[in-house]
Amino acid sequence: MTDKTAITPATHTTPPAAFSHGVKKGNILQVAGQVGFLPAVEGQPPTPAGPTLREQTLQTLANVHAVLEAGGATWDDVMMIRVYLTDVDHFAEMNALYNAYFEEQGLTAAPAARTTVYVGLPKGLLIEIDALAVLG
Amino acid sequence: MTDKTAITPATHTTPPAAFSHGVKKGNILQVAGQVGFLPAVEGQPPTPAGPTLREQTLQTLANVHAVLEAGGATWDDVMMIRVYLTDVDHFAEMNALYNAYFEEQGLTAAPAARTTVYVGLPKGLLIEIDALAVLG
Amino acid sequence: MTDKTAITPATHTTPPAAFSHGVKKGNILQVAGQVGFLPAVEGQPPTPAGPTLREQTLQTLANVHAVLEAGGATWDDVMMIRVYLTDVDHFAEMNALYNAYFEEQGLTAAPAARTTVYVGLPKGLLIEIDALAVLG
Repeated sequence: MTDKTAITPATHTTPPAAFSHGVKKGNILQVAGQVGFLPAVEGQPPTPAGPTLREQTLQTLANVHAVLEAGGATWDDVMMIRVYLTDVDHFAEMNALYNAYFEEQGLTAAPAARTTVYVGLPKGLLIEIDALAVLG
Repeated sequence: MTDKTAITPATHTTPPAAFSHGVKKGNILQVAGQVGFLPAVEGQPPTPAGPTLREQTLQTLANVHAVLEAGGATWDDVMMIRVYLTDVDHFAEMNALYNAYFEEQGLTAAPAARTTVYVGLPKGLLIEIDALAVLG
Repeated sequence: MTDKTAITPATHTTPPAAFSHGVKKGNILQVAGQVGFLPAVEGQPPTPAGPTLREQTLQTLANVHAVLEAGGATWDDVMMIRVYLTDVDHFAEMNALYNAYFEEQGLTAAPAARTTVYVGLPKGLLIEIDALAVLG
Protein backbone atom coordinates (compact mmCIF):
# COMPACT_ATOMS: atom_id res chain seq x y z
CA MET A 1 0.00 0.00 0.00
CA THR A 2 1.45 3.30 -1.10
CA ASP A 3 0.15 6.52 0.37
CA LYS A 4 -1.31 9.19 -1.84
CA THR A 5 -0.43 12.62 -0.54
CA ALA A 6 -1.77 16.02 -1.44
CA ILE A 7 0.71 18.71 -2.44
CA THR A 8 -0.25 22.19 -1.35
CA PRO A 9 2.36 24.90 -1.86
CA ALA A 10 2.09 27.47 0.93
CA THR A 11 1.63 30.37 -1.44
CA HIS A 12 -1.07 28.81 -3.61
CA THR A 13 -4.65 29.97 -3.61
CA THR A 14 -7.24 27.53 -2.26
CA PRO A 15 -8.67 25.41 -5.11
CA PRO A 16 -12.26 26.37 -6.04
CA ALA A 17 -13.41 22.79 -5.38
CA ALA A 18 -12.36 19.57 -3.66
CA PHE A 19 -9.21 18.94 -5.62
CA SER A 20 -5.50 19.13 -4.86
CA HIS A 21 -2.95 21.34 -6.59
CA GLY A 22 -0.86 18.22 -6.82
CA VAL A 23 -0.89 14.61 -5.69
CA LYS A 24 1.86 12.09 -5.33
CA LYS A 25 1.63 8.33 -5.02
CA GLY A 26 4.56 6.01 -5.43
CA ASN A 27 6.72 7.52 -8.15
CA ILE A 28 3.89 9.38 -9.90
CA LEU A 29 3.25 13.07 -9.31
CA GLN A 30 0.38 14.85 -11.00
CA VAL A 31 0.12 18.64 -11.05
CA ALA A 32 -3.40 20.03 -11.40
CA GLY A 33 -4.17 22.69 -13.97
CA GLN A 34 -2.37 25.85 -12.92
CA VAL A 35 -3.19 29.35 -14.07
CA GLY A 36 -1.40 32.67 -13.67
CA PHE A 37 -2.61 33.52 -10.19
CA LEU A 38 -0.25 35.45 -7.96
CA PRO A 39 0.58 34.04 -4.51
CA ALA A 40 -2.54 34.04 -2.36
CA VAL A 41 -3.23 37.07 -0.17
CA GLU A 42 -5.43 36.43 2.87
CA GLY A 43 -8.92 37.81 2.31
CA GLN A 44 -8.42 38.57 -1.37
CA PRO A 45 -9.77 36.58 -4.32
CA PRO A 46 -7.25 34.86 -6.63
CA THR A 47 -5.65 37.48 -8.87
CA PRO A 48 -3.81 36.89 -12.16
CA ALA A 49 -0.24 38.18 -12.42
CA GLY A 50 -1.45 40.52 -15.14
CA PRO A 51 -3.57 40.70 -18.24
CA THR A 52 -0.82 39.76 -20.71
CA LEU A 53 0.16 36.36 -22.03
CA ARG A 54 3.71 37.02 -20.88
CA GLU A 55 2.79 37.72 -17.28
CA GLN A 56 0.37 34.82 -17.09
CA THR A 57 2.66 32.28 -18.80
CA LEU A 58 5.59 33.01 -16.51
CA GLN A 59 3.40 32.95 -13.40
CA THR A 60 1.72 29.73 -14.52
CA LEU A 61 5.06 28.02 -15.07
CA ALA A 62 6.19 29.27 -11.65
CA ASN A 63 3.01 27.85 -10.12
CA VAL A 64 3.54 24.44 -11.75
CA HIS A 65 7.14 24.53 -10.54
CA ALA A 66 6.04 25.33 -6.99
CA VAL A 67 3.86 22.20 -6.95
CA LEU A 68 6.69 20.07 -8.33
CA GLU A 69 9.10 21.43 -5.72
CA ALA A 70 6.64 20.97 -2.87
CA GLY A 71 6.33 17.34 -4.03
CA GLY A 72 10.07 16.78 -4.18
CA ALA A 73 10.25 16.83 -7.96
CA THR A 74 12.02 18.98 -10.53
CA TRP A 75 11.32 19.87 -14.15
CA ASP A 76 13.65 17.00 -15.05
CA ASP A 77 11.06 14.57 -13.70
CA VAL A 78 8.27 15.95 -15.86
CA MET A 79 7.07 13.66 -18.64
CA MET A 80 4.16 15.64 -20.03
CA ILE A 81 3.11 19.26 -20.04
CA ARG A 82 -0.36 20.16 -21.25
CA VAL A 83 -0.73 23.75 -22.35
CA TYR A 84 -4.19 25.23 -22.82
CA LEU A 85 -4.35 28.53 -24.66
CA THR A 86 -7.41 30.52 -25.62
CA ASP A 87 -6.08 31.94 -28.88
CA VAL A 88 -4.15 30.27 -31.70
CA ASP A 89 -2.39 33.58 -32.29
CA HIS A 90 -0.70 33.20 -28.89
CA PHE A 91 1.22 30.08 -29.92
CA ALA A 92 4.42 31.73 -31.13
CA GLU A 93 4.71 34.08 -28.16
CA MET A 94 3.98 31.28 -25.68
CA ASN A 95 6.66 29.13 -27.32
CA ALA A 96 9.21 31.94 -27.04
CA LEU A 97 8.38 32.43 -23.36
CA TYR A 98 8.40 28.67 -22.79
CA ASN A 99 11.82 28.29 -24.40
CA ALA A 100 13.30 31.20 -22.50
CA TYR A 101 11.90 29.89 -19.22
CA PHE A 102 13.33 26.41 -19.68
CA GLU A 103 16.64 27.75 -20.91
CA GLU A 104 16.87 29.78 -17.71
CA GLN A 105 15.93 26.70 -15.66
CA GLY A 106 18.71 24.78 -17.42
CA LEU A 107 17.47 22.86 -20.41
CA THR A 108 17.72 19.11 -20.05
CA ALA A 109 18.64 16.70 -22.81
CA ALA A 110 15.13 15.26 -22.58
CA PRO A 111 12.54 17.99 -22.22
CA ALA A 112 9.01 16.84 -21.41
CA ALA A 113 6.53 15.94 -24.13
CA ARG A 114 3.81 18.53 -24.67
CA THR A 115 0.36 18.99 -26.14
CA THR A 116 -1.04 22.46 -26.82
CA VAL A 117 -4.70 22.98 -27.63
CA TYR A 118 -6.99 25.99 -27.76
CA VAL A 119 -9.94 25.99 -25.41
CA GLY A 120 -12.15 28.28 -23.41
CA LEU A 121 -10.93 29.45 -20.01
CA PRO A 122 -12.55 31.63 -17.33
CA LYS A 123 -12.67 35.33 -18.24
CA GLY A 124 -9.29 37.05 -18.01
CA LEU A 125 -7.23 33.85 -18.11
CA LEU A 126 -5.14 33.23 -21.24
CA ILE A 127 -3.25 30.07 -20.30
CA GLU A 128 -3.53 26.99 -18.13
CA ILE A 129 -0.88 24.29 -17.70
CA ASP A 130 -0.83 20.89 -16.00
CA ALA A 131 1.96 18.35 -15.75
CA LEU A 132 2.65 14.68 -15.10
CA ALA A 133 5.95 13.69 -13.48
CA VAL A 134 7.62 10.38 -12.80
CA LEU A 135 10.10 10.52 -9.95
CA GLY A 136 13.09 8.44 -8.99
CA MET B 1 5.44 -8.75 -18.83
CA THR B 2 2.36 -7.28 -17.26
CA ASP B 3 -1.03 -7.85 -18.82
CA LYS B 4 -3.14 -4.95 -19.96
CA THR B 5 -6.82 -5.63 -19.35
CA ALA B 6 -9.90 -3.85 -20.60
CA ILE B 7 -12.44 -2.70 -18.04
CA THR B 8 -16.01 -2.89 -19.23
CA PRO B 9 -18.70 -2.24 -16.63
CA ALA B 10 -21.77 -4.37 -17.39
CA THR B 11 -24.12 -1.40 -17.53
CA HIS B 12 -21.99 0.77 -19.83
CA THR B 13 -22.94 1.55 -23.40
CA THR B 14 -20.70 0.13 -26.11
CA PRO B 15 -17.98 2.65 -27.03
CA PRO B 16 -18.55 4.28 -30.45
CA ALA B 17 -15.13 3.07 -31.62
CA ALA B 18 -12.38 0.59 -30.81
CA PHE B 19 -11.52 1.88 -27.36
CA SER B 20 -12.05 0.64 -23.82
CA HIS B 21 -14.00 2.41 -21.08
CA GLY B 22 -10.99 1.67 -18.92
CA VAL B 23 -7.70 -0.17 -19.06
CA LYS B 24 -5.44 -1.45 -16.33
CA LYS B 25 -1.82 -2.48 -16.54
CA GLY B 26 0.39 -2.99 -13.54
CA ASN B 27 -0.65 -0.37 -11.01
CA ILE B 28 -1.98 2.12 -13.57
CA LEU B 29 -5.68 2.41 -14.36
CA GLN B 30 -6.95 4.83 -16.99
CA VAL B 31 -10.62 5.70 -17.30
CA ALA B 32 -11.73 6.85 -20.75
CA GLY B 33 -13.77 10.01 -21.17
CA GLN B 34 -17.17 9.36 -19.62
CA VAL B 35 -20.32 11.33 -20.32
CA GLY B 36 -23.73 11.36 -18.68
CA PHE B 37 -25.21 8.34 -20.45
CA LEU B 38 -27.65 6.22 -18.48
CA PRO B 39 -27.02 2.48 -18.19
CA ALA B 40 -27.29 0.86 -21.61
CA VAL B 41 -30.65 -0.52 -22.70
CA GLU B 42 -30.52 -3.27 -25.35
CA GLY B 43 -31.58 -1.93 -28.72
CA GLN B 44 -31.61 1.71 -27.66
CA PRO B 45 -29.01 4.35 -28.50
CA PRO B 46 -27.00 5.86 -25.60
CA THR B 47 -29.19 8.32 -23.72
CA PRO B 48 -28.04 11.11 -21.39
CA ALA B 49 -29.43 11.10 -17.84
CA GLY B 50 -31.11 14.38 -18.67
CA PRO B 51 -30.57 17.74 -20.28
CA THR B 52 -29.30 19.53 -17.16
CA LEU B 53 -25.74 19.96 -15.92
CA ARG B 54 -26.80 18.47 -12.58
CA GLU B 55 -28.16 15.26 -14.09
CA GLN B 56 -25.23 14.83 -16.45
CA THR B 57 -22.53 15.63 -13.87
CA LEU B 58 -23.85 13.13 -11.34
CA GLN B 59 -24.30 10.42 -13.99
CA THR B 60 -20.85 11.10 -15.42
CA LEU B 61 -19.24 10.80 -11.99
CA ALA B 62 -21.19 7.57 -11.43
CA ASN B 63 -19.94 6.26 -14.78
CA VAL B 64 -16.32 7.07 -13.93
CA HIS B 65 -16.84 5.39 -10.56
CA ALA B 66 -18.27 2.28 -12.22
CA VAL B 67 -15.11 1.91 -14.31
CA LEU B 68 -12.91 2.40 -11.26
CA GLU B 69 -14.87 -0.21 -9.31
CA ALA B 70 -14.86 -2.69 -12.18
CA GLY B 71 -11.07 -2.28 -12.23
CA GLY B 72 -10.68 -2.79 -8.51
CA ALA B 73 -9.98 0.86 -7.74
CA THR B 74 -11.66 3.52 -5.63
CA TRP B 75 -11.77 7.30 -5.79
CA ASP B 76 -8.89 7.23 -3.29
CA ASP B 77 -6.67 5.81 -6.01
CA VAL B 78 -7.43 8.59 -8.47
CA MET B 79 -4.58 10.99 -9.18
CA MET B 80 -6.09 13.17 -11.87
CA ILE B 81 -9.57 14.08 -12.98
CA ARG B 82 -10.04 15.95 -16.24
CA VAL B 83 -13.31 17.82 -16.50
CA TYR B 84 -14.48 19.08 -19.88
CA LEU B 85 -17.33 21.55 -19.81
CA THR B 86 -18.93 23.34 -22.72
CA ASP B 87 -19.75 26.60 -20.94
CA VAL B 88 -17.64 28.70 -18.56
CA ASP B 89 -20.85 29.69 -16.79
CA HIS B 90 -21.25 26.08 -15.64
CA PHE B 91 -18.08 26.14 -13.54
CA ALA B 92 -19.61 27.19 -10.21
CA GLU B 93 -22.51 24.75 -10.43
CA MET B 94 -20.24 21.88 -11.49
CA ASN B 95 -17.94 22.63 -8.54
CA ALA B 96 -20.88 22.56 -6.12
CA LEU B 97 -22.06 19.23 -7.53
CA TYR B 98 -18.49 17.89 -7.51
CA ASN B 99 -17.97 18.88 -3.89
CA ALA B 100 -21.28 17.42 -2.77
CA TYR B 101 -20.58 14.18 -4.63
CA PHE B 102 -17.16 13.70 -3.09
CA GLU B 103 -18.39 14.69 0.36
CA GLU B 104 -21.02 11.97 0.05
CA GLN B 105 -18.37 9.49 -1.12
CA GLY B 106 -16.30 10.38 1.92
CA LEU B 107 -13.76 13.06 1.20
CA THR B 108 -10.17 11.91 1.46
CA ALA B 109 -7.31 13.93 2.84
CA ALA B 110 -5.77 13.93 -0.62
CA PRO B 111 -8.37 14.53 -3.31
CA ALA B 112 -7.23 14.03 -6.90
CA ALA B 113 -5.69 16.85 -8.90
CA ARG B 114 -7.96 18.30 -11.55
CA THR B 115 -7.96 20.34 -14.73
CA THR B 116 -11.12 21.92 -16.09
CA VAL B 117 -11.29 23.36 -19.59
CA TYR B 118 -14.09 24.44 -21.90
CA VAL B 119 -14.42 22.58 -25.17
CA GLY B 120 -16.95 21.45 -27.71
CA LEU B 121 -18.84 18.22 -27.05
CA PRO B 122 -21.43 16.31 -29.11
CA LYS B 123 -24.85 17.98 -29.16
CA GLY B 124 -26.76 17.62 -25.90
CA LEU B 125 -23.71 16.75 -23.78
CA LEU B 126 -22.58 19.33 -21.22
CA ILE B 127 -19.79 17.50 -19.43
CA GLU B 128 -17.18 14.80 -19.99
CA ILE B 129 -14.75 13.45 -17.38
CA ASP B 130 -11.77 11.10 -17.53
CA ALA B 131 -9.49 9.91 -14.77
CA LEU B 132 -6.06 8.42 -14.10
CA ALA B 133 -5.59 6.18 -11.08
CA VAL B 134 -2.57 4.59 -9.46
CA LEU B 135 -3.40 1.49 -7.45
CA GLY B 136 -1.69 -0.33 -4.62
CA MET C 1 17.54 6.79 -10.36
CA THR C 2 15.88 6.02 -13.66
CA ASP C 3 16.93 7.93 -16.72
CA LYS C 4 14.43 9.95 -18.69
CA THR C 5 15.15 9.76 -22.39
CA ALA C 6 13.83 11.80 -25.27
CA ILE C 7 12.30 9.93 -28.20
CA THR C 8 12.91 11.57 -31.55
CA PRO C 9 11.88 9.59 -34.62
CA ALA C 10 14.27 10.33 -37.48
CA THR C 11 11.51 11.43 -39.84
CA HIS C 12 9.75 13.78 -37.43
CA THR C 13 9.76 17.54 -37.84
CA THR C 14 11.58 19.54 -35.18
CA PRO C 15 9.15 20.55 -32.40
CA PRO C 16 8.29 24.28 -32.46
CA ALA C 17 9.54 24.65 -28.89
CA ALA C 18 11.66 22.94 -26.24
CA PHE C 19 9.65 19.76 -25.95
CA SER C 20 10.17 16.15 -27.00
CA HIS C 21 7.99 14.15 -29.38
CA GLY C 22 8.15 11.46 -26.74
CA VAL C 23 9.80 10.74 -23.41
CA LYS C 24 10.38 7.50 -21.59
CA LYS C 25 11.25 6.96 -17.96
CA GLY C 26 11.03 3.62 -16.24
CA ASN C 27 8.01 1.87 -17.71
CA ILE C 28 6.16 5.05 -18.66
CA LEU C 29 6.22 6.43 -22.20
CA GLN C 30 4.45 9.65 -23.10
CA VAL C 31 3.86 10.67 -26.70
CA ALA C 32 3.48 14.42 -27.29
CA GLY C 33 0.57 15.78 -29.29
CA GLN C 34 1.06 14.64 -32.88
CA VAL C 35 -0.56 16.18 -35.92
CA GLY C 36 -0.75 15.11 -39.55
CA PHE C 37 2.63 16.41 -40.67
CA LEU C 38 4.45 14.44 -43.35
CA PRO C 39 8.01 13.30 -42.68
CA ALA C 40 10.29 16.32 -42.41
CA VAL C 41 12.05 17.58 -45.52
CA GLU C 42 15.25 19.55 -44.92
CA GLY C 43 14.66 23.24 -45.49
CA GLN C 44 10.89 22.98 -45.75
CA PRO C 45 8.36 23.94 -43.11
CA PRO C 46 6.18 21.16 -41.59
CA THR C 47 3.50 20.18 -44.10
CA PRO C 48 0.26 18.31 -43.38
CA ALA C 49 -0.37 15.09 -45.31
CA GLY C 50 -3.35 16.80 -46.90
CA PRO C 51 -6.32 18.98 -46.16
CA THR C 52 -8.77 16.14 -45.44
CA LEU C 53 -9.62 14.51 -42.13
CA ARG C 54 -8.77 11.13 -43.66
CA GLU C 55 -5.27 12.11 -44.71
CA GLN C 56 -4.53 13.88 -41.43
CA THR C 57 -5.96 11.15 -39.19
CA LEU C 58 -3.95 8.39 -40.84
CA GLN C 59 -0.75 10.46 -40.82
CA THR C 60 -1.30 11.47 -37.20
CA LEU C 61 -1.77 7.85 -36.12
CA ALA C 62 1.38 6.95 -38.08
CA ASN C 63 3.26 9.72 -36.30
CA VAL C 64 2.12 8.53 -32.87
CA HIS C 65 3.12 5.01 -33.87
CA ALA C 66 6.57 6.19 -34.96
CA VAL C 67 7.18 7.67 -31.51
CA LEU C 68 5.99 4.49 -29.81
CA GLU C 69 8.25 2.35 -32.00
CA ALA C 70 11.25 4.62 -31.50
CA GLY C 71 10.66 4.21 -27.77
CA GLY C 72 10.41 0.43 -27.95
CA ALA C 73 6.64 0.33 -27.45
CA THR C 74 3.70 -0.91 -29.48
CA TRP C 75 0.03 0.04 -29.63
CA ASP C 76 -0.56 -2.82 -27.20
CA ASP C 77 1.27 -0.82 -24.54
CA VAL C 78 -0.91 2.26 -24.96
CA MET C 79 -3.27 2.99 -22.08
CA MET C 80 -4.78 6.28 -23.20
CA ILE C 81 -5.26 8.06 -26.50
CA ARG C 82 -6.43 11.66 -26.48
CA VAL C 83 -8.03 12.79 -29.71
CA TYR C 84 -8.53 16.48 -30.38
CA LEU C 85 -10.83 17.35 -33.25
CA THR C 86 -11.91 20.77 -34.41
CA ASP C 87 -15.41 19.84 -35.55
CA VAL C 88 -18.05 17.65 -33.88
CA ASP C 89 -19.22 16.63 -37.34
CA HIS C 90 -15.89 14.84 -37.84
CA PHE C 91 -16.54 12.34 -35.04
CA ALA C 92 -18.15 9.56 -37.09
CA GLU C 93 -15.57 9.70 -39.88
CA MET C 94 -12.67 9.80 -37.42
CA ASN C 95 -14.11 6.76 -35.62
CA ALA C 96 -14.37 4.84 -38.88
CA LEU C 97 -10.77 5.68 -39.78
CA TYR C 98 -9.65 4.87 -36.23
CA ASN C 99 -11.37 1.49 -36.28
CA ALA C 100 -9.99 0.60 -39.71
CA TYR C 101 -6.49 1.63 -38.67
CA PHE C 102 -6.50 -0.47 -35.53
CA GLU C 103 -8.07 -3.41 -37.29
CA GLU C 104 -5.23 -3.29 -39.79
CA GLN C 105 -2.71 -3.04 -36.94
CA GLY C 106 -4.30 -6.11 -35.38
CA LEU C 107 -6.91 -5.23 -32.80
CA THR C 108 -6.02 -6.26 -29.28
CA ALA C 109 -8.44 -7.60 -26.73
CA ALA C 110 -7.81 -4.49 -24.66
CA PRO C 111 -7.72 -1.38 -26.81
CA ALA C 112 -6.57 1.82 -25.11
CA ALA C 113 -9.00 4.10 -23.34
CA ARG C 114 -9.78 7.30 -25.20
CA THR C 115 -11.12 10.81 -24.74
CA THR C 116 -12.24 12.90 -27.70
CA VAL C 117 -12.93 16.61 -27.35
CA TYR C 118 -13.37 19.49 -29.78
CA VAL C 119 -10.91 22.32 -29.56
CA GLY C 120 -9.16 24.93 -31.64
CA LEU C 121 -6.03 23.91 -33.55
CA PRO C 122 -3.63 25.88 -35.74
CA LYS C 123 -5.07 26.78 -39.16
CA GLY C 124 -5.27 23.82 -41.53
CA LEU C 125 -5.01 21.15 -38.84
CA LEU C 126 -8.11 19.04 -38.16
CA ILE C 127 -6.80 16.52 -35.65
CA GLU C 128 -4.20 16.12 -32.93
CA ILE C 129 -3.51 12.95 -30.91
CA ASP C 130 -1.34 12.17 -27.90
CA ALA C 131 -0.84 8.92 -26.04
CA LEU C 132 0.30 7.46 -22.74
CA ALA C 133 1.87 4.00 -22.70
CA VAL C 134 2.95 1.67 -19.93
CA LEU C 135 5.62 -0.78 -21.01
CA GLY C 136 6.74 -4.15 -19.73
